[in-house]
Amino acid sequence: MGVVVENIQRTDASVVDRLAQLGVATVHEAQGRKGLLANYMRPVYRGTRTAGTAVTVSVAPGDNWMIHVAVEQCRAGDIMVVAPTSPCDDGYFGDLLATAFMARGIRALVIDAGVRDVGEITEMGFPIWSKCISAQGTVKETLGDVNMPIVCAGQYVEPGDVVLADDDGVVVVRRAEAAGVLEKALAREAKEASSRQRYANGELSLDVNDMRPRLAEKGLMYLSSSDGDTE
Amino acid sequence: MGVVVENIQRTDASVVDRLAQLGVATVHEAQGRKGLLANYMRPVYRGTRTAGTAVTVSVAPGDNWMIHVAVEQCRAGDIMVVAPTSPCDDGYFGDLLATAFMARGIRALVIDAGVRDVGEITEMGFPIWSKCISAQGTVKETLGDVNMPIVCAGQYVEPGDVVLADDDGVVVVRRAEAAGVLEKALAREAKEASSRQRYANGELSLDVNDMRPRLAEKGLMYLSSSDGDTE
Amino acid sequence: MGVVVENIQRTDASVVDRLAQLGVATVHEAQGRKGLLANYMRPVYRGTRTAGTAVTVSVAPGDNWMIHVAVEQCRAGDIMVVAPTSPCDDGYFGDLLATAFMARGIRALVIDAGVRDVGEITEMGFPIWSKCISAQGTVKETLGDVNMPIVCAGQYVEPGDVVLADDDGVVVVRRAEAAGVLEKALAREAKEASSRQRYANGELSLDVNDMRPRLAEKGLMYLSSSDGDTE
Amino acid sequence: MGVVVENIQRTDASVVDRLAQLGVATVHEAQGRKGLLANYMRPVYRGTRTAGTAVTVSVAPGDNWMIHVAVEQCRAGDIMVVAPTSPCDDGYFGDLLATAFMARGIRALVIDAGVRDVGEITEMGFPIWSKCISAQGTVKETLGDVNMPIVCAGQYVEPGDVVLADDDGVVVVRRAEAAGVLEKALAREAKEASSRQRYANGELSLDVNDMRPRLAEKGLMYLSSSDGDTE
Amino acid sequence: MGVVVENIQRTDASVVDRLAQLGVATVHEAQGRKGLLANYMRPVYRGTRTAGTAVTVSVAPGDNWMIHVAVEQCRAGDIMVVAPTSPCDDGYFGDLLATAFMARGIRALVIDAGVRDVGEITEMGFPIWSKCISAQGTVKETLGDVNMPIVCAGQYVEPGDVVLADDDGVVVVRRAEAAGVLEKALAREAKEASSRQRYANGELSLDVNDMRPRLAEKGLMYLSSSDGDTE
Amino acid sequence: MGVVVENIQRTDASVVDRLAQLGVATVHEAQGRKGLLANYMRPVYRGTRTAGTAVTVSVAPGDNWMIHVAVEQCRAGDIMVVAPTSPCDDGYFGDLLATAFMARGIRALVIDAGVRDVGEITEMGFPIWSKCISAQGTVKETLGDVNMPIVCAGQYVEPGDVVLADDDGVVVVRRAEAAGVLEKALAREAKEASSRQRYANGELSLDVNDMRPRLAEKGLMYLSSSDGDTE
Repeated sequence: MGVVVENIQRTDASVVDRLAQLGVATVHEAQGRKGLLANYMRPVYRGTRTAGTAVTVSVAPGDNWMIHVAVEQCRAGDIMVVAPTSPCDDGYFGDLLATAFMARGIRALVIDAGVRDVGEITEMGFPIWSKCISAQGTVKETLGDVNMPIVCAGQYVEPGDVVLADDDGVVVVRRAEAAGVLEKALAREAKEASSRQRYANGELSLDVNDMRPRLAEKGLMYLSSSDGDTE
Repeated sequence: MGVVVENIQRTDASVVDRLAQLGVATVHEAQGRKGLLANYMRPVYRGTRTAGTAVTVSVAPGDNWMIHVAVEQCRAGDIMVVAPTSPCDDGYFGDLLATAFMARGIRALVIDAGVRDVGEITEMGFPIWSKCISAQGTVKETLGDVNMPIVCAGQYVEPGDVVLADDDGVVVVRRAEAAGVLEKALAREAKEASSRQRYANGELSLDVNDMRPRLAEKGLMYLSSSDGDTE
Repeated sequence: MGVVVENIQRTDASVVDRLAQLGVATVHEAQGRKGLLANYMRPVYRGTRTAGTAVTVSVAPGDNWMIHVAVEQCRAGDIMVVAPTSPCDDGYFGDLLATAFMARGIRALVIDAGVRDVGEITEMGFPIWSKCISAQGTVKETLGDVNMPIVCAGQYVEPGDVVLADDDGVVVVRRAEAAGVLEKALAREAKEASSRQRYANGELSLDVNDMRPRLAEKGLMYLSSSDGDTE
Repeated sequence: MGVVVENIQRTDASVVDRLAQLGVATVHEAQGRKGLLANYMRPVYRGTRTAGTAVTVSVAPGDNWMIHVAVEQCRAGDIMVVAPTSPCDDGYFGDLLATAFMARGIRALVIDAGVRDVGEITEMGFPIWSKCISAQGTVKETLGDVNMPIVCAGQYVEPGDVVLADDDGVVVVRRAEAAGVLEKALAREAKEASSRQRYANGELSLDVNDMRPRLAEKGLMYLSSSDGDTE
Repeated sequence: MGVVVENIQRTDASVVDRLAQLGVATVHEAQGRKGLLANYMRPVYRGTRTAGTAVTVSVAPGDNWMIHVAVEQCRAGDIMVVAPTSPCDDGYFGDLLATAFMARGIRALVIDAGVRDVGEITEMGFPIWSKCISAQGTVKETLGDVNMPIVCAGQYVEPGDVVLADDDGVVVVRRAEAAGVLEKALAREAKEASSRQRYANGELSLDVNDMRPRLAEKGLMYLSSSDGDTE
Repeated sequence: MGVVVENIQRTDASVVDRLAQLGVATVHEAQGRKGLLANYMRPVYRGTRTAGTAVTVSVAPGDNWMIHVAVEQCRAGDIMVVAPTSPCDDGYFGDLLATAFMARGIRALVIDAGVRDVGEITEMGFPIWSKCISAQGTVKETLGDVNMPIVCAGQYVEPGDVVLADDDGVVVVRRAEAAGVLEKALAREAKEASSRQRYANGELSLDVNDMRPRLAEKGLMYLSSSDGDTE
C-alpha cells in the first residue's frame, strides 16, 4: 500500500466517447454479459449517461486521503473509481471535491462507499454512482494506492479501462477489448432498433425470435383453465 | 414446470378500474391488512397508480424465457406478475419488452427481480414495480409456468386476481373478494375525508377518535419534565 | 413504558433556525463527527433542509398509537422523532397524520420505520426521513413513551435536542451544545467557501491543504507505469 | 383475521414418516425443485431431520398470542408453521412454549421470525427452524388465524401439508402430492446411491452422466495455459 | 473525541453476579422489555452465560487503537463494550488481545464490529458477542473515547452499567436500576418454574393464563374445516 | 464464456503446505492486509484450516454445470474456487460432488453461493466455505469458464494462486508472492508468540508496543469520573 502509478495508458478517447452514447445494458451484453458492477451502485441523481477512462483508487475504511492524491493523476475524460479495502459506508466525497473534479474535467465518480452534500452536487451536475449516501466524515491517516488494479463492487478494474455508467448502473470494459466491444455494441443496437419496430407493431417476441419450436422441444404444455384448476 | 394455462378467469374490469382509483394503503386496510407485497418492491419511477388483472409467471433464476411466452397470454388491462423460483436480481426486462407490453395494452409489470433500460422505460412511461434495477442479462434455457399460482415478494397471487400499485407499493386482491373490498375501500375513503378535514382544522386524533379513555385504562401516565428528569 | 413527559425544555429557537440553514454534513463535522443517524434514514422526497426541536416517541412494533398521543405534546418548530422498541418496517404514518402535523406546525417526521401515502404526502410537502416506505397498517394496542430519551437509527436523542435533516440524512445536536456547534459550523462553512473558490480555479487539495509532506513522511511512492506493470 | 379452523385434514402419517427419513434437498428435487422455504430459515441447532403435518399460524408483528391458541389445535406428529403478517424479528417462542409443545407431541417449530431461550431449548432437544434468534419479548393483543393458508418464508403452506426440515433448511410438500413425491424421492435416492459409489471410485460426473457431447455442442473450448495467458 | 474517563462507578458486584445466573430473556422482560442489543450480536461460540460491568469504548472505523487504551481501565469483572463511530465489519480483536483481557480478568467482549482468531479464542474460552467474524486488520491512527456513554448495536450504554449475555444475545441494565431488576427477574423466574411444570403436565397456556375470555371478547372464531374450506 | 484452461501453473506445493499451517489473519496481515474474501464466506462447519492451489470456476446463476467440468482440471492439493456471474444463493454443490472431490484429492470448496447436503458433508469431513446453505437445485444449461481469473466474494483470484481458509474466513495469496508472504507470515507469528507471553503475564499492549507517547501527541486526555460526568 502507498503507491501512485503515473502516466498510465488509457483507452483511446474516440472509442470511449462513442461507447458513452450506448447504454450500459447494451455494452454489457455486447461483451458477453460481463463487467457489470454490483447493482447497489446507483446514481446520486437520475438521467445521466457518461463514459471515461478509469483512474483507480484504493482507500482505507473511513479515510479519503487517497482521493485527494488521485485528483492530480486525473485528466479531462477520466472517471475516478474508488474502492475501500474493507466495506465502508462513510461519506468519502462532498461538494468541495466535486468542485475540484469538475475543474479538472473529471467526468464522474464511481465509489463503492458513501458520498455527501448530494443536494449541492445534484445542483452542480456532477455525476456519481455510489453504494450509498452518508454525511459521515472521514479521516486522512492511512495510505492506499492510485492506479493499481482494484476490485470495485465485485468487478476487477484496471487503470485506463473504460467505465460506462447510466441509470442502469456501471459497466467496465477492458482497455484491450474496448474497440471490439464498441463494434459489437453498435451492431447490437442496430438489431434492437429493428426488433423494437416489430414489437411496436404488435408482433410477439415468440415469433420475431422464432422461439416456439425450442419451447415445444423442451416440453412446454398449454392447458385451458377451468375455474377449479387455478384456485 | 413448463405449463401455460390459457383462458383464465379475470376479475371484472369495472371493479378493477374503480379499485385503480384508490390507494394501495386504503385497499390494504379495507381488506383487513392483508395482501401487501414486500416493501422492497418499489416503482422504477414515482407518480403512477394503476391496477390490472394478474397474469402470473414463474421464471428460473437468470432466465427470462417465460416472460416472452407470457406476453401472448396477456390482454389489455392485465398486469404481469413475475417471480423467480429462487431469489435473483438479474435484469429480466428491458425497453424491447416494454415496447411489446405497451403494444398489447399490458398496464404494468410487477417483478420480484431486476429490470434494466430504466432511463428509456421512464421516458416511455411504462410502469414497473421491481426488487431492483440491474443491467445483468439473462438466458433463455429453462421452462417455467404461466398462470399457475405463485408467491411474489411474500404474497400468494392467483391468475386473474387484482393487482394494485402506487408509490406505496403493491397489493393483491383475490378475484372472489374484489367487489366486496372495493365497497369497503370506498367507505373507508369517505370516512378518511371527514377526518382529514377535522385534522386540518387543528383537532387532535386523540379526540377525533376518542382515544383518551382507553389510554388511561391501559395506564398511560403524564409527568411534567424537570430539567434533571430528561437528561 | 407508558409515560408522557410534558413541558420539556427545548433548544433556543433562534439557534435552531440558524442551524436549519446549514447542511447536515457541515454540522456533523462541526460537532466532531458525531450525532449522525444511520444512513438508511432517507428523505421521502429530495430537496428539503429543515431543523427543529425533538419530541421523542417510543412505539411498539406494528403499533402507532403513541404517535397520536405525541402530537398533543408538539408545538410549532418541533420535529417528531420516532423509534420502535424492536425493528419494524410497517407504515406508521400516512396522509391523515401528516395533515394533523402540518396543522400544528410540526416541521418534519424522523422515523426508524416505514411510512405510507407518500404520493399524497409529497404533494402536501410535508418532510419525512424514514427507514422505508410501506403501506402496511398498524394497530393501537400497546403503550410506549413520549419525551423519554430514545435511540433512533443508532443515535441517542433527548427531547428538546436539535434535529437537522437534508438530502444527506439526519443529525442530532445536544441541546446544551447547540449554540457552540452553531458557531463552529458557521466558521467551517466560511472556511469551505474559501477552499471552494481555490478548487474551482484548478488548485489541488494536495496543495491547498499542504498534504504532500505528510504523505511523503508516511512513505507514499510515485512510480511511472509501463504497460506490463498495470496489466 | 381471528379465525381458528379445527379438524383439518392431514397428510397420511405413514407417508409423512417415510418422508422424514429423506433429505430436504432430495425431496425438493423429487417434486420438481419447488416448495423450499427461504434459506434464512436455519435450525437453532444442527443435526436434526424431521417431518410433520403443518398447523399454520398467522401472527401480528411482535405478538405471539396466536401461538398459544394454536397449541390446542395440534396433535402428535404436527409441526407448527408460523408467519408474521409483516416482517418481524422478535422472539415469539421460548422454553415454556417448548415445554408445552413437547408435552403435546409437536415435532418442531418453523417460524419466519425470532425465538429465544435457545440454550435451554437446545438442551431440551426441541427442533426449531427460524429466521433469527432474539430475546425480544412480544405482547398478546391482536388476533390472527390458525389453520388458514399462509406464506411462510416465501412458500405457500396449507394446513395438513407435509413440512420436512433438516440442516439444509425446510421444504413443504402439498398434501395431495405427498405420496407421489415420496415415491419419486425414494427413486432418486436409489439412483444417487449408485452414482455416489462410482464417484467414490474416481469416475468423473462428466462421464457418469455423459455430459461431454452436449458441452461440445454448446461450444465449450479447451485451451492450454501459457504463463502469460493466465496473468 | 479522545477522552478516557477513569475511576467510573460500577454496579455493585454482588448484584452483577446474581444477574449473571439469569437468562437474557428473563432480565429483558423483568425490566419492561428494554435494553436488548440488536439480534445480529451473536456469540462467537455457544454455551456461555456471563455478566459484568461495562467499560465503554468508541472506536473509529477500521481502527482498534482505543481497545488497547481501554484495557488499562478495566478490572476483574468488567465487560468491554465497543462501538465504531460508523458501521464497520473489520476484525478489531484477536487472540493476542484475548490473552491480555483474560490476564486482567475481563469477563467478555461485546463489540458491534468483527473479531478474528476465533478458532484460537474458542479454545481459550474467552466469550465474545460480535456483529461478525472477519480477519480484516485494523490500524492505530485515530483517537476515540473510553468510558463515555455510547450506543452499541442500538442500545445506549453507560460505563458501569450491567451487561448480561448468553446464547440469546446481550442486554444492558442501568446501574441505578440493577438491584430492582434483579428482584423482578428472580420473581419472574420463580413464576416461570411453576408454569413450566404445568405445561410439562400437558396443560395449555390458554388455560394456565386464562386467555379464553379475552380472546372471545376480541372476536376469535372457531370453524370446523371442510376439505374445500382450506384449499 | 465457455473456456477451460488446462495445465495451469500452480504455486509450489511446499509453500502452500507451509502456509496451510498459518492462520488466515496472520497471512492477511503479512501480505499488507489484502486478499481477504468478504466475511459472509463462512465455513459449513468449524474447526478446519486448509490451503490449496486455486482452480477457478465461473458459473451462471442457478447453473452448476461448470463445476462438473472443472473437477477434471483439479488434482490433489487444489481448492476449487467458484463465483456466479451474478449473485445467486442456490445450492450448487452437494454430497455427490463432495464424494467426487474427495476421491480426487481436492482439499476444499470456496463458493460465493450456496451448498446443500451439509449434514452429510459435515460427517464426510469435506471442508467448504460458502455464502450460505441452500437446498435449492440448479440446472445444467449454460457454459462458464474454468481457470480464467475471477472475482470471488470481492477478491480477484487467478488460477494457481494459494487459497487459505480457516474459521476466520478465506484469503488469497498471489502465486508470485507466495514464498515472500510465507516468510513474512512466519516472522509475524514468531513476534506474536513473544507478545502473547508478555500479555499473559499481565503486561499492557500500551507498554509492550510503546503506544503512550503517540497517544499523548494526538491529544488523548485522561479525566476522572464524577458521578454527574458519566450520566
